[in-house]
Amino acid sequence: MAHPLFGPEVKMMLAEKNSAGLREFCESLHPATVAEALEDFTPEQIWEAISSANIRTQASIFEYLPLALQVEMAEKARPQVGQLLSQMSHDDRVDLLRRLPPRVTEAIMRLVDEADRKDIATLFQYGENTVGSLMTTDYAWLPGTLTTAEAIDQLRQQAPDRETIYYIYVLDDPVRRPDGSPAPRRLLGVVSLRDLILAPRHALIRELMETDLVTLRYDEDAEAVAQLFARYDLIAVPVVDEQFGLLGIVTHDDVLDVVTREATEDLQRQGAVGPLEGNYLEASMWAIWKSRAFWLAFLFILQMGTINVMAHYEGKLEPKTEQPQSAQTTANAKKTTTGLAFMIVFIPLCLSVGGNAGSQAATLVTRALALEHVRVADWFRVFRRETLIAAALAATLGILAIVRTYFLTPDNIQEKVPPGMFWYLVWVVTFAVMGICLTGAVVGSMLPIAIKAIGKDPALMSAPFIATLSDVLGIAIFFNIVILFF
Amino acid sequence: MAHPLFGPEVKMMLAEKNSAGLREFCESLHPATVAEALEDFTPEQIWEAISSANIRTQASIFEYLPLALQVEMAEKARPQVGQLLSQMSHDDRVDLLRRLPPRVTEAIMRLVDEADRKDIATLFQYGENTVGSLMTTDYAWLPGTLTTAEAIDQLRQQAPDRETIYYIYVLDDPVRRPDGSPAPRRLLGVVSLRDLILAPRHALIRELMETDLVTLRYDEDAEAVAQLFARYDLIAVPVVDEQFGLLGIVTHDDVLDVVTREATEDLQRQGAVGPLEGNYLEASMWAIWKSRAFWLAFLFILQMGTINVMAHYEGKLEPKTEQPQSAQTTANAKKTTTGLAFMIVFIPLCLSVGGNAGSQAATLVTRALALEHVRVADWFRVFRRETLIAAALAATLGILAIVRTYFLTPDNIQEKVPPGMFWYLVWVVTFAVMGICLTGAVVGSMLPIAIKAIGKDPALMSAPFIATLSDVLGIAIFFNIVILFF
Repeated sequence: MAHPLFGPEVKMMLAEKNSAGLREFCESLHPATVAEALEDFTPEQIWEAISSANIRTQASIFEYLPLALQVEMAEKARPQVGQLLSQMSHDDRVDLLRRLPPRVTEAIMRLVDEADRKDIATLFQYGENTVGSLMTTDYAWLPGTLTTAEAIDQLRQQAPDRETIYYIYVLDDPVRRPDGSPAPRRLLGVVSLRDLILAPRHALIRELMETDLVTLRYDEDAEAVAQLFARYDLIAVPVVDEQFGLLGIVTHDDVLDVVTREATEDLQRQGAVGPLEGNYLEASMWAIWKSRAFWLAFLFILQMGTINVMAHYEGKLEPKTEQPQSAQTTANAKKTTTGLAFMIVFIPLCLSVGGNAGSQAATLVTRALALEHVRVADWFRVFRRETLIAAALAATLGILAIVRTYFLTPDNIQEKVPPGMFWYLVWVVTFAVMGICLTGAVVGSMLPIAIKAIGKDPALMSAPFIATLSDVLGIAIFFNIVILFF
Repeated sequence: MAHPLFGPEVKMMLAEKNSAGLREFCESLHPATVAEALEDFTPEQIWEAISSANIRTQASIFEYLPLALQVEMAEKARPQVGQLLSQMSHDDRVDLLRRLPPRVTEAIMRLVDEADRKDIATLFQYGENTVGSLMTTDYAWLPGTLTTAEAIDQLRQQAPDRETIYYIYVLDDPVRRPDGSPAPRRLLGVVSLRDLILAPRHALIRELMETDLVTLRYDEDAEAVAQLFARYDLIAVPVVDEQFGLLGIVTHDDVLDVVTREATEDLQRQGAVGPLEGNYLEASMWAIWKSRAFWLAFLFILQMGTINVMAHYEGKLEPKTEQPQSAQTTANAKKTTTGLAFMIVFIPLCLSVGGNAGSQAATLVTRALALEHVRVADWFRVFRRETLIAAALAATLGILAIVRTYFLTPDNIQEKVPPGMFWYLVWVVTFAVMGICLTGAVVGSMLPIAIKAIGKDPALMSAPFIATLSDVLGIAIFFNIVILFF
């Protein structure tokens, strides 16, 4: 399985227009291997590389390409995609069409034949993240009145796609809705291909079938699928409507995707990143900003509470030896002797920004490394991206910092600011927050890559570790800005 | 699927010694459903409930019980387990025997027949977390020289377990090692049951079989399995040795377990918790302490750097208006006028402890809630457990705090401590660290449960959120302890 090795070979065959070689390459290897080898080519090159293979193989290879690449390829070559659609697995093609711009979807749909168009339209109607959206309509079914020998003959004719043959669903007679339209047939039971093979040739399906069924409703949350598969060790689960009519099945390979997506979501939530679909390097800057700005701002506002708590206690740490002096001298003395110690009430707020921005960046980059969306060689792209996003986040927090310090600095702190220097305080806090946010995010994104580069597990760069590092850096940044201004 | 409803019914049947009813209950439902209904019973009750079912069903139900419960049941009833072992799936029974105390394993193994004993010994030798440890030896195989019709007849005789029939492995003639002992037969190809059914009856297996094989080596890391299944959408992958001899297969249901275990590990690492096997409520206090103390202490020591950075800058924030006064008055004035502001250099260190301890607790409890190891009703057990563990962790950090402040407080800070009060400083920092650690951990463990109780997603209580909350609490704790002492 040395896929990276196939790249140069394919390049040569493309240059030589060696279509016999390309056909051999596509058809003799597992389509997932071919897809992996082609991932770094341009859409045009990929089309050229696979076009000499038979249409069934083309569809399989296409399905194994990353969804973002499928979308790009579809936009560039609608007629080809139209042809492939009829060969693709029913759930994957709907996933693809969902991502395409509506006009492209429309244009492609015109190239698809009646039956497929109907099937796509049916699956299209289920909401994302529901069981219905994971479902395929490509399953094997039989009436219960057949014998096993007849059933096997019928299966030979249906010849359903790949793994979906391993459970055969036993359906009731056709029914109609009150308005006369056909309703999905009711699910009576399930026979595994294993039982069919092992049973005597004249046994009736009806008698063989399992009737204690594990099913899913089409409108359940996709998470339910993962739980059910984990509990029952299944290859496929039938999906039914309110009347127990069979709508489709969810197969085991979709479950791994759901589990991986959920794990990513959990990790992101734990790192205070909102839901971000897909790849760190491919997602739009806007999407990444959105997924982080809300939490960062929310935590920032919450953390502002520390200013009040610090200010409340700050007075109690003050020298208490001034009473005997005259009122006027005291006032003067106070101004001069406390120096800039009052700035300290802003430290916990400023430091927390670095920890939060850093753990967001570390969470995203660590996960992207684990899912192989980002490689060590991409470090500069990550650096550039993270610097821009961190700058946008820093600006967001900077605005909040100005508002907070200008309008809401506690009175006892305001009193201590040397006259005419109040704006200095506002700017110090704002620039410290921005500088620490930027530093935290960049350090948080680069450290996991550095750890990966030396061959260790990047997950060791846990959020608390990043927070600790950025505290040390943060204090230095904070004080240097204070010294710069005052 | 209303499993909780079966509980009272089973209890009644047990009281009435209604073995016909219990048999019916065990045999008519899916074994996973039966196992779920029995989970809260005592080992003795479970043995009694399942004993009237046939041995095959007993084994299936037993396999679906949580591993910790299987271990308990095995220790209580060795002869029964000995009987079940021959019916259990080959990988699950090795998992069970691995967890049992060696003397129990030995006693049980004496009750198992020759063939099974050999098979268990073979699987036992693979290291945990390797592909070999996930493997089952229960697969279907054929020589390549048969026709499809002959092959189906042979399969009827082999009648392998459940899903493992869906891929049939084609093996070479038997080989022997140089020392004359039999070596595993070489893997030549694979035929899916689907292809076998759909092919003409006289086609040769050799011609049907797929030879571009996706395989795993027995000594690869278990993580490799998850990646391979995700990429190739497989139901099972063959595991081979150095000579491509077939050792066993890994099936799709084991992959979900691997993925879930990995996701848990990633979440724990991100929350700075070391690897912790199994259930939060069932793991020993010692195991939980171990998984957390190292990281907490490591981060604490790293964070001590903030003291030096703060101390470095602290001087620069001091009043600069003292020069004109005489040397002696200056010294006195300094002692009194700076008050207790120097204590502030310890704030970032103390606050970080709350954030770290809190995110550890939140990580463990949130994951335990997601995996349903902990329910909202268990809140008091979690509270008690977390308080004890947090106390042990606080003691650990307390010792480090004493050492650090006593021996390593920076000179410019030591100068400012009022004479004779240096020990006060040591105690303030130590108690603040301990108090904040305890508070952070307890808040971090209770908040996810509270959020779950009001019906929201506990993962919203992200580590940064807990850190922010515990900062606010931490400052109050810190200053109150300062005021108490000085």
